[in-house]
Amino acid sequence: MNQGVDLAAAVNRCAVLREPGVVVIEDREVPQPGPGQVVVAIGAVGICGSDVHYYEHGRIGDFVLREPMVIGHESAGTVVATGENVDPARVGELVALEPGVPCKSCAQCLAGRYNLCPDMRFFATPPVDGSIATFVAVDAGFAHPAGEGLSAEQAAMAEPVAVGVWAARKAQVSVGDSVLITGAGPVGLFAAQVARAFGASSVTLTDLSDYRLEVAAELGFATRRADESGSGQNFDVLLECSGAAPAFRSGMRALGPNGRAVVIGMGSDELPLEVAALQGKELTVQGVFRYRNCYAAALELLRSGAVQTAPVLTHRFGLEETEAALTLARREPASLKAVVVL
Amino acid sequence: MNQGVDLAAAVNRCAVLREPGVVVIEDREVPQPGPGQVVVAIGAVGICGSDVHYYEHGRIGDFVLREPMVIGHESAGTVVATGENVDPARVGELVALEPGVPCKSCAQCLAGRYNLCPDMRFFATPPVDGSIATFVAVDAGFAHPAGEGLSAEQAAMAEPVAVGVWAARKAQVSVGDSVLITGAGPVGLFAAQVARAFGASSVTLTDLSDYRLEVAAELGFATRRADESGSGQNFDVLLECSGAAPAFRSGMRALGPNGRAVVIGMGSDELPLEVAALQGKELTVQGVFRYRNCYAAALELLRSGAVQTAPVLTHRFGLEETEAALTLARREPASLKAVVVL
Amino acid sequence: MNQGVDLAAAVNRCAVLREPGVVVIEDREVPQPGPGQVVVAIGAVGICGSDVHYYEHGRIGDFVLREPMVIGHESAGTVVATGENVDPARVGELVALEPGVPCKSCAQCLAGRYNLCPDMRFFATPPVDGSIATFVAVDAGFAHPAGEGLSAEQAAMAEPVAVGVWAARKAQVSVGDSVLITGAGPVGLFAAQVARAFGASSVTLTDLSDYRLEVAAELGFATRRADESGSGQNFDVLLECSGAAPAFRSGMRALGPNGRAVVIGMGSDELPLEVAALQGKELTVQGVFRYRNCYAAALELLRSGAVQTAPVLTHRFGLEETEAALTLARREPASLKAVVVL
Amino acid sequence: MNQGVDLAAAVNRCAVLREPGVVVIEDREVPQPGPGQVVVAIGAVGICGSDVHYYEHGRIGDFVLREPMVIGHESAGTVVATGENVDPARVGELVALEPGVPCKSCAQCLAGRYNLCPDMRFFATPPVDGSIATFVAVDAGFAHPAGEGLSAEQAAMAEPVAVGVWAARKAQVSVGDSVLITGAGPVGLFAAQVARAFGASSVTLTDLSDYRLEVAAELGFATRRADESGSGQNFDVLLECSGAAPAFRSGMRALGPNGRAVVIGMGSDELPLEVAALQGKELTVQGVFRYRNCYAAALELLRSGAVQTAPVLTHRFGLEETEAALTLARREPASLKAVVVL
Repeated sequence: MNQGVDLAAAVNRCAVLREPGVVVIEDREVPQPGPGQVVVAIGAVGICGSDVHYYEHGRIGDFVLREPMVIGHESAGTVVATGENVDPARVGELVALEPGVPCKSCAQCLAGRYNLCPDMRFFATPPVDGSIATFVAVDAGFAHPAGEGLSAEQAAMAEPVAVGVWAARKAQVSVGDSVLITGAGPVGLFAAQVARAFGASSVTLTDLSDYRLEVAAELGFATRRADESGSGQNFDVLLECSGAAPAFRSGMRALGPNGRAVVIGMGSDELPLEVAALQGKELTVQGVFRYRNCYAAALELLRSGAVQTAPVLTHRFGLEETEAALTLARREPASLKAVVVL
Repeated sequence: MNQGVDLAAAVNRCAVLREPGVVVIEDREVPQPGPGQVVVAIGAVGICGSDVHYYEHGRIGDFVLREPMVIGHESAGTVVATGENVDPARVGELVALEPGVPCKSCAQCLAGRYNLCPDMRFFATPPVDGSIATFVAVDAGFAHPAGEGLSAEQAAMAEPVAVGVWAARKAQVSVGDSVLITGAGPVGLFAAQVARAFGASSVTLTDLSDYRLEVAAELGFATRRADESGSGQNFDVLLECSGAAPAFRSGMRALGPNGRAVVIGMGSDELPLEVAALQGKELTVQGVFRYRNCYAAALELLRSGAVQTAPVLTHRFGLEETEAALTLARREPASLKAVVVL
Repeated sequence: MNQGVDLAAAVNRCAVLREPGVVVIEDREVPQPGPGQVVVAIGAVGICGSDVHYYEHGRIGDFVLREPMVIGHESAGTVVATGENVDPARVGELVALEPGVPCKSCAQCLAGRYNLCPDMRFFATPPVDGSIATFVAVDAGFAHPAGEGLSAEQAAMAEPVAVGVWAARKAQVSVGDSVLITGAGPVGLFAAQVARAFGASSVTLTDLSDYRLEVAAELGFATRRADESGSGQNFDVLLECSGAAPAFRSGMRALGPNGRAVVIGMGSDELPLEVAALQGKELTVQGVFRYRNCYAAALELLRSGAVQTAPVLTHRFGLEETEAALTLARREPASLKAVVVL
Repeated sequence: MNQGVDLAAAVNRCAVLREPGVVVIEDREVPQPGPGQVVVAIGAVGICGSDVHYYEHGRIGDFVLREPMVIGHESAGTVVATGENVDPARVGELVALEPGVPCKSCAQCLAGRYNLCPDMRFFATPPVDGSIATFVAVDAGFAHPAGEGLSAEQAAMAEPVAVGVWAARKAQVSVGDSVLITGAGPVGLFAAQVARAFGASSVTLTDLSDYRLEVAAELGFATRRADESGSGQNFDVLLECSGAAPAFRSGMRALGPNGRAVVIGMGSDELPLEVAALQGKELTVQGVFRYRNCYAAALELLRSGAVQTAPVLTHRFGLEETEAALTLARREPASLKAVVVL
């Protein structure tokens, strides 16, 4: 093991979700790098809607908080120690942490669909601890070198940007496509920037929040209030990022022949699939579950400046303020994404 | 013009849907072949659910019966005359008639998606006349040579078989796939045979009708009552042929990771799209609208015997009995498809 | 017919290739718009290598110059008359002319592969006349609106840009791809700009001409002399634009696992396909023949400025100087593309 | 560890390639199952051209025999012991052994392209030992259950059948395709049967050996001598299984528009790629390297009887006769594949 800090002497402060609505800051054991792992000193962790959902409800679907769990999964930091079979020269490297590590051996993994691995271990998905902590130990292959020029907080955004990359790949966004994005929250704003980088001819965002639409407009996108009907609609691609059933319905209606929809947003248990549109225009609808093999591209888009994080990262908190970060969205409508900076 | 019968002396008997619920047999003008056309003496026309729908309701969506219209569109017959720019040697050829002829010049047509052509002229879709008639004139390229060994009634089935071929292509059915088909009516039974010909490892049909499931079983397929839950489900492909929302819902649940669903059946305005399944398994749902470039393959499957029509074509009628053919389904539960034989 | 100029009074000057090496300027009949056609007053025509090849050799493969033929096919101009079934409001529109019009009815056309239509009529491909002429009549659907802000000479470049778009689509160039382009002539320089617009992470051009590599470098691309070996090569995509066998060979060697090559350049009858690379890296090699459905995207890239024509259009000639335009490349090494401006 | 035989008391006879042209039978240590492994009592091992090549030349490309190596890689047998994390109930199971186990962690593996893993360990590829041995220890996930009804020798053929499955998948063989297979040796004969199972409308094999063509004809395929020109050629797919440059050249010429070629055969360092055909017909050429995720489908085709092994497995040998098996092809022209039965 090579290490850049004295882990034996270090303290590992962690933001632990003890039960719904209760986050405590605890010192936990400092992790050691296992074979094939690195230990990362976390620099920044973005707060995602799923973190907020666990904070508020203690569960997402079948994943139920039964034991206290470190929260957070959109993270980046600096390699401080390397385990067996890992290049010790990686100590000092800024890395973006892909939060889910699959089994690598099941049928889904061997087929390249590791995000569908039934044995995936994913940060802050019970019972797996997350990454709002001084240190985490992770699979070296899932600690992606951020490259030159990124801050930790930018690199942490590789996570939601990867969501957009995966959706754009699924939708095969390319030059000539007009893209409609329903929902101008952090996911939608990153997906929009990604779609533009994929060559989309036009990108239009809809939302019910004027604040969010203004941010979208400042980023150079066409915008429209979600409750106003569009005209001349014939989009090639719909990226549904709101999780709202009406947005999906109107988005599907706004697609042209052979249109492709990707459902990214969560929130509705069930979406209304209108048969006349689906069949008459031969639409394709795909669901996405996180992402796979997208971190390198996401980081590249961040490095090139094609994807900007500044307009999305509206509020910053210290580790001790994690609970405030988790409640930001409900307190402050004029906010997008909170980031915990360590 | 080359002609194999004396069209000037011929009579053209037609089954005309005058208004909902009223079919009359009329003599209409004998068609002449325009440039690039053939005139076909119709031999057999299958009755489709859409024909029945027009008979009962006088409309399907935006297509409304405003003038009397010849009904029927699943047809085959013999070329009796050829127009300009058509090989006169085609006289005498048995042909299956692809019922929709597109404009060939719009963006959809040039992109190869001629089934999405907004100017498609399709048999028995108002205001275009259908093919339960002694003679019809059609685009020579859409009168597909049936080849050796098929009867007119078999060749007419190229239409619903093409529906199955298109769905199988959209779903990319191939060796190794397990396929679930919800709905064991004529469309489902043809789609099942097509899926098997595409190499599917297993094909399972569900329905609420024991009669239909028996036919499916006789064709060698696994069957299950639609109201009984399956076990060990992990299908790769769902071909929804029932038009029933519960069938779609349970079919989507029965898909495994990366599963692909194609919605063929009509009937529900809206289908319930469960987000947990769509995203958690990264499912793909596609709607199909008729078919394109599928007749050659459909006819080949009929010629090779891979697709059998006998178990599906349960009742035959003369042209004068067209109305009885249209009401068969509602009168006789133990029926599948009616065919009008001329 | 609507017309914006008095065609009856007009003169139609044409650059006619009478025999190899002999271009004459002739007055020919002014074309009238047939049904579905427009007549276009040509504004600019780029000179392509195939034009030069006909000029020098009188043939390309099976296409042999047997009668005098108007030369040129990369053209744009202004609609001056419209035929039946064409919106008369198009008079005055600047259009880029897609030079090949297919039959629209054969199996290739119906499958959306109209560029493979055996009955394609293509400008300046014997016996079809080309477009270095005051007026040409063309299919209205193949006279693509240039939109706002383009000059005729820029719009004419939609043709070679469409070559790049088609290659990028075939190679599925997208975000995350590193692209190698062998040959930094006009085709390569446009393909490089297209690849960048498709989201390619890096684009590298090789050539034997320092002049061309300088132009490439000014456009912001990485460059390398074709006779110097590269290091750290693991390209995702090869766009072969040189037509030179050694470039193809070294390009294939420079691809990484799962690499995709598209052969655009012409020149060698045969390319060496090394089996160890092809199999060991599971490479894909595709040939392209012109393009299909790419003009809208090409024009959009020109309008947005993603593709610049100024660095490529190095020399301009009048219609009467067409022969000088055709001999530019052999006379002037420091040239890229000649354009005839009318 | 669960075990069905007393490994401590067992003897492990192995066919060892000591140097080119020298095979000896040696007793080697009986393997123990590591974590995630099974030990298999080998039942049958087919002889492949690569085995013969190592026997004759001691190398294939960069893989050089430097130490004595157990030969053979097309194998099946019975699980006799299971390691940690493997279901002990697998003891007694007949399994087909996928001969290459990848690292599962590199970029290629995570992308699902594990056959391109640079750290692949593949039976009988120096320095990794092969499987003509009483016992081998292998990754449990690469010991594929043969299912009901197969003999060990049939199950061993999953390896060359998987080659065909992978090629058919790469070429997207499906209903409506006409397939040309150049080379009617074991690989070609299996690929032909696979193509038929994928729904190919017609499958034609060419070879210079009348013996091989007779076997192909008995299997129901169209045949043609490779040195006779075909007529009416317009194949959709070429599966090149001969490794001969002239076969590739004529096969490419025999493809129709949009044709897809897959290069399976080895033998020529370089194949001639004719540009006129490649571009004019927009052909696609792909190389394949072994296979990935194909064993389940291969075994299913064997179980269903879609792929017959009897016509291909012409000669059987005992383990002690391995050298005779390796020299069969050169001694006996009327042979296809040798299998070593233990």
